[in-house]
Amino acid sequence: MVLHALRATDCATLTEITRVTGLSRPTVEGVVEGLIENGLVVEKAAEEGAARRQGRPARRFRFRAEAGHLLGLEIGPHRVAALLADLDGRVLGAMAKEVDEGASADERLERLRIAVAELLRRAGVARSSLRAVGVGSPGIVEADGTVRLGTALPEWTGLRLGERLSRSFKCPVLVENDANAAAVAEHWKGAATESDDIVFVLAGLSPGAGSLIGGRLHRGYGGAAGEIGALHLLGREVTPETLLSTTDEPLHPLDEQAVAEVFALAKGGDQRARAAVDRFIQRLVHDVAALVLALDPELVVVGGWAAGLDGVLEPLRRELARYCLRPPKVTLSLLGEAAVATGALRLALDHVEEQLFAVEGTVTARR
Amino acid sequence: MVLHALRATDCATLTEITRVTGLSRPTVEGVVEGLIENGLVVEKAAEEGAARRQGRPARRFRFRAEAGHLLGLEIGPHRVAALLADLDGRVLGAMAKEVDEGASADERLERLRIAVAELLRRAGVARSSLRAVGVGSPGIVEADGTVRLGTALPEWTGLRLGERLSRSFKCPVLVENDANAAAVAEHWKGAATESDDIVFVLAGLSPGAGSLIGGRLHRGYGGAAGEIGALHLLGREVTPETLLSTTDEPLHPLDEQAVAEVFALAKGGDQRARAAVDRFIQRLVHDVAALVLALDPELVVVGGWAAGLDGVLEPLRRELARYCLRPPKVTLSLLGEAAVATGALRLALDHVEEQLFAVEGTVTARR
Repeated sequence: MVLHALRATDCATLTEITRVTGLSRPTVEGVVEGLIENGLVVEKAAEEGAARRQGRPARRFRFRAEAGHLLGLEIGPHRVAALLADLDGRVLGAMAKEVDEGASADERLERLRIAVAELLRRAGVARSSLRAVGVGSPGIVEADGTVRLGTALPEWTGLRLGERLSRSFKCPVLVENDANAAAVAEHWKGAATESDDIVFVLAGLSPGAGSLIGGRLHRGYGGAAGEIGALHLLGREVTPETLLSTTDEPLHPLDEQAVAEVFALAKGGDQRARAAVDRFIQRLVHDVAALVLALDPELVVVGGWAAGLDGVLEPLRRELARYCLRPPKVTLSLLGEAAVATGALRLALDHVEEQLFAVEGTVTARR
Repeated sequence: MVLHALRATDCATLTEITRVTGLSRPTVEGVVEGLIENGLVVEKAAEEGAARRQGRPARRFRFRAEAGHLLGLEIGPHRVAALLADLDGRVLGAMAKEVDEGASADERLERLRIAVAELLRRAGVARSSLRAVGVGSPGIVEADGTVRLGTALPEWTGLRLGERLSRSFKCPVLVENDANAAAVAEHWKGAATESDDIVFVLAGLSPGAGSLIGGRLHRGYGGAAGEIGALHLLGREVTPETLLSTTDEPLHPLDEQAVAEVFALAKGGDQRARAAVDRFIQRLVHDVAALVLALDPELVVVGGWAAGLDGVLEPLRRELARYCLRPPKVTLSLLGEAAVATGALRLALDHVEEQLFAVEGTVTARR
């Protein structure tokens, strides 16, 4: 409770903490002393080196968000990215590296390690200061951080991703599906801060989705919730790569550059490209409708590709309104390509908060 | 806590209750006296009329499950049904009445009232003894019991069903979507007692579904979760009525008799009927796959029609295994046509238990 009170404000006096928490003054004093010993709280005056002035002004304390650090990592087909934050979740730095879509798992993880090392060095943060690392990755991720199935990246299925990354860190490493992480991010500081019941659609050639129900991530019984990429196979329909192609050859499944070109051509009035985009949107509408009918969210956030997706919004709204018994609001991602790493960061922050407040809970229970 | 302890056993002494609850003997005595005054608990010896024997044997108390009653009601296209139970949820009687699929809302509700009156009279239970009434109905049901949208029954959309039924009862009336109620029922005493993450599919011509996530009903933001009946419309595919027809004329949407005949013909080897059933199963597989990909349940329970559905199970398992990244178990409903009313009864029981134990919670908090 004391930690909660201190984190909610810049700094506070013992009297203020006593008032906010409802705890007795001796209790608050004891807890604050303990938190100072742990390095999580500091006395403002002492920190500022100011001599106590006459009249003995009340001592003021503040939460030391700099007492530890967090990483939010993204592993994607074309890039790896890392976000560094303090214990308040305030972002201190970011780093991204391109990676070849055909890179082996080893190469991809090595690129990520390089990005992290560079990010920590530039920010002047010691690796030992890290309290938790969140990771967003394509694929179905099990609770222990193993990728059960991941067709989007080479050598990804079966990869013990959590264990591999843990070798680089002494703190806990939490691995989550990328669309799930993005859903958490949009809810934290993106397009979905006002809603607790959302579906985030990662609209790639193989679309995935993450959903929050009552503000909590819905992973499903086996961590596979939202993996709607296979839905079209049941209708015996063609793949998105074929839908979006303007030639007789399907696009490469991971070639987002080619996709962006088709979208650009369609905008420019090219007939074949426009037809391809229409086919693609129809598919996306169908996949999103399946999610919406199953889950009935308040809000659908569409993200994934930076380019071209704005044209998706209107047809999506129109078709969902036609076929869903209770159509949701539909909006574009606000976080764009930062969504996955931001969500991974939030998951790391959740973990640390749980730890911090669990300690506090134990103290309370013991009283 | 005392009520919990007493409900968990046939009868108990004050010493036993004290041991199980960890409460002090005076507290237990006080609470038991209060419960006796409320009529929820009775002393065994007093009840049996036996004079206290020599040696003063310990007084024994039991929960009076007969102190109140519950109803679980089902409103369907072809019938209305009612289940009567005591406060332990033990079923004391059942009653069903046929109703014409074209009946007006007034007629349908009147049939239900007649069924309830007959059931209460036969069981010798006074209407004033009812503590809660659960109702399962087709359609999207809002929190206040209004049917927002219900195309399966005439005059159903917009019907203030909760309010209409409340006129017949002095206790709370809780209205729930029929597939949701069936999901709750299968989890309570049907095919899904071992799993907390389930999807129940009401496989009619217009399929609906209900799901439990972590053992709790997932209604969706607007109560429309699982309403997958519209999914095929997006693919511009034909309706189930056409799929299942063996002539050029579609079946009537609510004609389950005709459906049963097609299933029977297919079993007998009729080629056209077999083709029709195959088309229907393919559609059902697609709808269920959409639910499974979105939610990732541990178990899918298929119910709805009594006849013909056993042939659905194998193709469903096979296709889900092909296309779902983590295929769920698939099984048939154990409760059959009793599922909806049973689930409605469970919802009434949940409501009463909440009330009983909320009172108890208040007492505890006051200590």
